[in-house]
Amino acid sequence: MTSERVLINRVFRKLPSRQGGNLRVGIGDDAAVVRPKPGLEWVVTTDAFLENIHFLLRVHPPQAVGYKALARASSDLAAMGARPLYFLLNLALPARCTGKWFDGFLDGMARAARTFGLVLAGGDTTSSPLAAINLTVIGEAGRGQAVLRSGARPGNLLCVSGRLGEAELGLQLLLRRGSKTRKWKKPLQKHLYPQPRLELGEWLARSGRATAMIDTSDGLSTDLSHLCEASGVGAKLWAPKIPRVVVPDDAPKIGLDSLRLALDGGDDYELLFTVSKRFARHLPRALRRVPLTVIGEITRDKRILLVDDAGRMKKLPAQGWDPFRK
Amino acid sequence: MTSERVLINRVFRKLPSRQGGNLRVGIGDDAAVVRPKPGLEWVVTTDAFLENIHFLLRVHPPQAVGYKALARASSDLAAMGARPLYFLLNLALPARCTGKWFDGFLDGMARAARTFGLVLAGGDTTSSPLAAINLTVIGEAGRGQAVLRSGARPGNLLCVSGRLGEAELGLQLLLRRGSKTRKWKKPLQKHLYPQPRLELGEWLARSGRATAMIDTSDGLSTDLSHLCEASGVGAKLWAPKIPRVVVPDDAPKIGLDSLRLALDGGDDYELLFTVSKRFARHLPRALRRVPLTVIGEITRDKRILLVDDAGRMKKLPAQGWDPFRK
Repeated sequence: MTSERVLINRVFRKLPSRQGGNLRVGIGDDAAVVRPKPGLEWVVTTDAFLENIHFLLRVHPPQAVGYKALARASSDLAAMGARPLYFLLNLALPARCTGKWFDGFLDGMARAARTFGLVLAGGDTTSSPLAAINLTVIGEAGRGQAVLRSGARPGNLLCVSGRLGEAELGLQLLLRRGSKTRKWKKPLQKHLYPQPRLELGEWLARSGRATAMIDTSDGLSTDLSHLCEASGVGAKLWAPKIPRVVVPDDAPKIGLDSLRLALDGGDDYELLFTVSKRFARHLPRALRRVPLTVIGEITRDKRILLVDDAGRMKKLPAQGWDPFRK
Repeated sequence: MTSERVLINRVFRKLPSRQGGNLRVGIGDDAAVVRPKPGLEWVVTTDAFLENIHFLLRVHPPQAVGYKALARASSDLAAMGARPLYFLLNLALPARCTGKWFDGFLDGMARAARTFGLVLAGGDTTSSPLAAINLTVIGEAGRGQAVLRSGARPGNLLCVSGRLGEAELGLQLLLRRGSKTRKWKKPLQKHLYPQPRLELGEWLARSGRATAMIDTSDGLSTDLSHLCEASGVGAKLWAPKIPRVVVPDDAPKIGLDSLRLALDGGDDYELLFTVSKRFARHLPRALRRVPLTVIGEITRDKRILLVDDAGRMKKLPAQGWDPFRK
């Protein structure tokens, strides 16, 4: 059996806590000490990634667990338009995850940290019957530039990045077909290695053009309901416009409807944001090859309605991920 | 079964996230947004408090679980000499903890937040077979004033606050005698409702007199080894000087030796710090009725030695809490 010290040293090696600059004290002390840059605001978020709730040891490779834990947490920064700086890692691990599994996990997390520009600043480790990864991620944004959920106004247009439902399709294929899923690489990659839209978020925040923003972590229907509730508005969602995953013909089709996946599938980590009608005309079709699509309109009427090809409307219930419902 | 939204609303009511001042965005968005005060540094720490590892649902009242989770995390700020500002709460709860238990838990946590001066700034909730509370606590300290583990120098004197081993005695009595423990109220209180030494920590940091500091969360023998390792020094610990718990005569005595409890018992959350010999002469005997005691000396020789009444020395192994050893 390993000791806490040995585990921490392995974290140190794979996730160097480069002290210096504004990080005065990194891992190894009781707490991290950071000198904030003058004129900027701090954006702080925390996220749990738990065995049997968010991932399965027998299904998900350790690299994906490490990568995705940090990607999910960083997506909350993208949703505010903040630039990632530091993260704190709180690990609770069973003995079976302290050997080779742990190396794979750290490799995946190190890759995510490099990709997102995050430096490990602190953390804690303990033992636990089930693996639990808790992350705190800290970013910065210009004064007053962070984009909130609460700024959507009637008449604003609703936009989304990427293609929705891909991660959920990847999960469903993985659960039903296991490694045979390899031929459907794209949805699988999106499920295992999601890409938080950090550049897009920062661009929208800096330009001041997004009036409200949230990331699609629980699924469009649920995340849109959060944004509308925070803003005190409703929305009309144009079903034909929603950029949605293509379900492969030879995929096991039971219950895998592409509109349903796009509306209620979680884990996409795309950005859902609102802009004024005037700005929408200047919205590029894509930013760094990530498509941007106008999918609806914000309304004074607080209901959330789905409008089909024929213009028929029906209420859209929030049926994305709720950990306490299932 | 409750929904995530309902749980979050209950958190809101008991732990108001008072927006305003430097907290621009509190709970309810993707992340918290804070405006740091100019000239100050930020001190950030994260801590896990897990069912069956750190607490037992059948033994520990929900109020104590909520209180202690925040007290433990805040103790890391005390150990740096930082002033608490904000916290983020990440909750993973089984269905059996979402009813009345949750109200008690929030009451305890709200009491701790008021006592320590902490405001809830964000968080997340999810379901889980075992209760897990993850906290991120943010504080501030003057530029360069945070006290690190790494500053102890040979010749410095080693000091400790309070009385050691009390929390461990409280736990042992609770496990062996359950509610009959009430007559030993003091150790029980210390185990259930520890008091992080925030005022003492801040005073030592502001005065610039502590050369190194750590809190006694794992037990004196282990925490002293951390401090010495970070500082590249050793220590002589004077056994007769260690302020230790009194084991009640009629307590079940099996294995409850007061020196052993003081050396290896965890969860006391006292401060262990080093000062120059010159300053030690001016160290008050107590600060706000918390006794301060000189218990040893820092040495160039990197061993940690325990010196008994007769001046005999023996090596002191780190035998406090290590979650991966047991």
